[in-house]
Amino acid sequence: MREKVLALTTSRNWEAFILTVIIINAITLGFETSDTVMQSFAGPVLRFFDRLVLIIFVIEIALRLYAHRLRFFRDPWSLFDFTIVVISLLPASGPLQVLRALRILRALRLLSMIPSLRRVIGGLVAALPGMGSIIVLMALVFYIFAVIATKLYGETFPEWFGSLGATIYSLFQIMTLESWSMGIVRPVMEVYPNAWLFFVPFILSTAFTVLNLFIGIIVSAMQKEHEQELLEENRQAREPEMQMILSELKALRQEVAALKVERTR
Amino acid sequence: MREKVLALTTSRNWEAFILTVIIINAITLGFETSDTVMQSFAGPVLRFFDRLVLIIFVIEIALRLYAHRLRFFRDPWSLFDFTIVVISLLPASGPLQVLRALRILRALRLLSMIPSLRRVIGGLVAALPGMGSIIVLMALVFYIFAVIATKLYGETFPEWFGSLGATIYSLFQIMTLESWSMGIVRPVMEVYPNAWLFFVPFILSTAFTVLNLFIGIIVSAMQKEHEQELLEENRQAREPEMQMILSELKALRQEVAALKVERTR
Amino acid sequence: MREKVLALTTSRNWEAFILTVIIINAITLGFETSDTVMQSFAGPVLRFFDRLVLIIFVIEIALRLYAHRLRFFRDPWSLFDFTIVVISLLPASGPLQVLRALRILRALRLLSMIPSLRRVIGGLVAALPGMGSIIVLMALVFYIFAVIATKLYGETFPEWFGSLGATIYSLFQIMTLESWSMGIVRPVMEVYPNAWLFFVPFILSTAFTVLNLFIGIIVSAMQKEHEQELLEENRQAREPEMQMILSELKALRQEVAALKVERTR
Amino acid sequence: MREKVLALTTSRNWEAFILTVIIINAITLGFETSDTVMQSFAGPVLRFFDRLVLIIFVIEIALRLYAHRLRFFRDPWSLFDFTIVVISLLPASGPLQVLRALRILRALRLLSMIPSLRRVIGGLVAALPGMGSIIVLMALVFYIFAVIATKLYGETFPEWFGSLGATIYSLFQIMTLESWSMGIVRPVMEVYPNAWLFFVPFILSTAFTVLNLFIGIIVSAMQKEHEQELLEENRQAREPEMQMILSELKALRQEVAALKVERTR
Repeated sequence: MREKVLALTTSRNWEAFILTVIIINAITLGFETSDTVMQSFAGPVLRFFDRLVLIIFVIEIALRLYAHRLRFFRDPWSLFDFTIVVISLLPASGPLQVLRALRILRALRLLSMIPSLRRVIGGLVAALPGMGSIIVLMALVFYIFAVIATKLYGETFPEWFGSLGATIYSLFQIMTLESWSMGIVRPVMEVYPNAWLFFVPFILSTAFTVLNLFIGIIVSAMQKEHEQELLEENRQAREPEMQMILSELKALRQEVAALKVERTR
Repeated sequence: MREKVLALTTSRNWEAFILTVIIINAITLGFETSDTVMQSFAGPVLRFFDRLVLIIFVIEIALRLYAHRLRFFRDPWSLFDFTIVVISLLPASGPLQVLRALRILRALRLLSMIPSLRRVIGGLVAALPGMGSIIVLMALVFYIFAVIATKLYGETFPEWFGSLGATIYSLFQIMTLESWSMGIVRPVMEVYPNAWLFFVPFILSTAFTVLNLFIGIIVSAMQKEHEQELLEENRQAREPEMQMILSELKALRQEVAALKVERTR
Repeated sequence: MREKVLALTTSRNWEAFILTVIIINAITLGFETSDTVMQSFAGPVLRFFDRLVLIIFVIEIALRLYAHRLRFFRDPWSLFDFTIVVISLLPASGPLQVLRALRILRALRLLSMIPSLRRVIGGLVAALPGMGSIIVLMALVFYIFAVIATKLYGETFPEWFGSLGATIYSLFQIMTLESWSMGIVRPVMEVYPNAWLFFVPFILSTAFTVLNLFIGIIVSAMQKEHEQELLEENRQAREPEMQMILSELKALRQEVAALKVERTR
Repeated sequence: MREKVLALTTSRNWEAFILTVIIINAITLGFETSDTVMQSFAGPVLRFFDRLVLIIFVIEIALRLYAHRLRFFRDPWSLFDFTIVVISLLPASGPLQVLRALRILRALRLLSMIPSLRRVIGGLVAALPGMGSIIVLMALVFYIFAVIATKLYGETFPEWFGSLGATIYSLFQIMTLESWSMGIVRPVMEVYPNAWLFFVPFILSTAFTVLNLFIGIIVSAMQKEHEQELLEENRQAREPEMQMILSELKALRQEVAALKVERTR
């Protein structure tokens, strides 16, 4: 029985069916954003289909749980699917009404269904730990600059630097270079003429670190792949010459051996 | 007869003539944007020249179609030329008046005429399929964030997030970091103080994916080229030593063979 | 006695203790930015803890100075720690009140405590000298454009180009592309219609140089590391074949030697 | 006589003298931007020094011209120095008053004096021809989009798209992503709701091409350098093994030769 379920949930047809359900559901959730559609006859149909999809997802996860038992939770992609379905099951009312909007996250299940997307995500995630120290460095730089800015400019510009949270948001905006000068630093400099001594180094250091972080992740992921190829090609290019040398050597040894045999005769 | 036409359309003189026509036409279409020029005596001349160019293009395509027959449609660059000429032939009046402005697209025929440009375009296009999964990932991320934003902020900010289309445009603007904070997110945060929980992750994930996509295409295109060079140089650097070893080995075998011959005498 | 102090200051427990003090101090300095917290009962506690931390830091530096003597000043990281503690000791009143906000710089001591962060910083610093000429080039370009802009637009737009300092700040803003056109160049062009002849080349040349500088630092740091790996792998891939050739050769020599020995018998 | 002049203009002392003059002149031209300085006693001194520097430069160029004769004009850096000095000699009055502001360009002579800067500039210039086709492609894309935008939006938004020149400037601004949406495209979309169909593809294609161009120049310059190093290291790593194999082979041949000699005895 358990093996039959396992065979079913890993069969090509089943996977194609679930994939189709995810894609159609993603489209219907898109239609649900339109008031005109929802107030027409299509509204109740879409709502009914949405319930149906949720039931299909629950059944699918239940079958996979039955088939794999606790090993189900060891596969990160299974956990990912499980979390998304659980979020969909939470009651989306009262303070949790925001969850209604998050139903579209089910479309993320495409990530776990399509192998090429799985590999892209896997590659990105695999590159992250190597960059751990730069992320820590970034967080440290942000925290230090945020504490200083709150202390220095918090009283005069409470909207931007009133609390640690507000300052971190403002610094993130400055880091993305959005309206940093005309919107924020020039007004600050009218009160504190030396404020550029704080903001220009902040921009330089974060721009440098962010760039470092981003390019680091990408180039390292890329080079790893290319090194393998290069190495492989390199060996293939060397192979024929090495083979020639080796076969020359073997032929030579045979001749010497023949010489020896002949001698002892 | 057909071979003569083929020889004509692939001759250097013919290509130089068509190239000249394209360039002059691109310049005259530039002049046509100026009202002062068009209302002067030059106006009718430019309009007449434009018709003449169109006739030349139609004749050229007709000749190539006659020479290559159906094989004409197998070459993507021929198809490209064909499409551009067909667009120019459509009646540019009524709802299609916008097509008058698109006549300048004929200048794109330079892409198919100049070999170095052809190669650049070819290189870029060849790099795209390898990046297919990241483009799909990007589209998925955009779609999911757009559905959520329309649901959450659509009613309060109809101009930015009123419909799925409006939201996708706004998110594209936010992704390019243009006025994202001062223009959009700060106003939204005045109504929904937690909106940064939506927009900051969106910026981080799209910035990361876009960068990944762009650098991916470029670096891969570049490295392929350089690997070839590196490999070639590598082999050339190794060649002389390998040759020395091989010639040493051959000399040795000859001596051993000589030894054997001598012995049997 | 001195050796005992040395052993103490380099012991794992001591380092863990100092690390904990730094992290807790960074957090308490974060709380100090909140007026609500500082006016509650926690205020005096936080202030007291801050004094305590400063005393611990002074004692730690004193111990290390006693243990290492003048060699202490040869290690750049020790100098870094020393400077940060000295800044904390300066009287933070009157014109130096800004120093109170800089106490959070103590959190930078994490950089010298955590080896992986040390290595990241070391890597970035090591890459800088190779880029010295581009930094000089950048400074030269900035200075030349600033002198020209002050001369040309200083009188009409004193806020942006009134003095060399103001111009350099404005050019930095333009270089980051923040509001460069709508905010600055379009207004300037209303008075001087040819101003784009100055600003567009400035943007092109600085964008090009900055990009060059940034990518230069990063790629060079990255490639150095990868070359080493590639080289190592390359050798390992070649090793077995080389070993086979060498062992073939040795066996051959032994046989020839045996032949010779036999002959002389 | 000519050789003495040649020896003088290429001597270390002379070069150090000219370098000092350039740097001091760059600084005094900076001071000249300040009205306060120019109206103080220092004003006439600075003006006198500026004349003196110009005389020194003219003499230096004259000496080099005398020493090298026509070969002087074959060295691009000499031509560069010559052009800068000629610009300084032009009468800076009337319509050419702007030339007074360009005197600071003399500081660019540092580029030709300092070898490391010369090499950086040389490297950048050397990388450009390989990117020629992308620059042509870029110009073509810009021109085509500019003609279309002027035709479509010129009448309604004359400030931004009124003439081909105005449109090219606006498109450059849009390409740098400065206020592209809030400042330009959203207002345009209020009149032409489909305008995004024009501007979003423009942003995507230029962003892609610019990035391609920039990274192309840099990476190619960088990899060329690193390939050389890699190749060198690669050979050095292979050398000892190759040497061992070769010496093994030589020893073997000697033994075989000895065998032969012994036999014939």
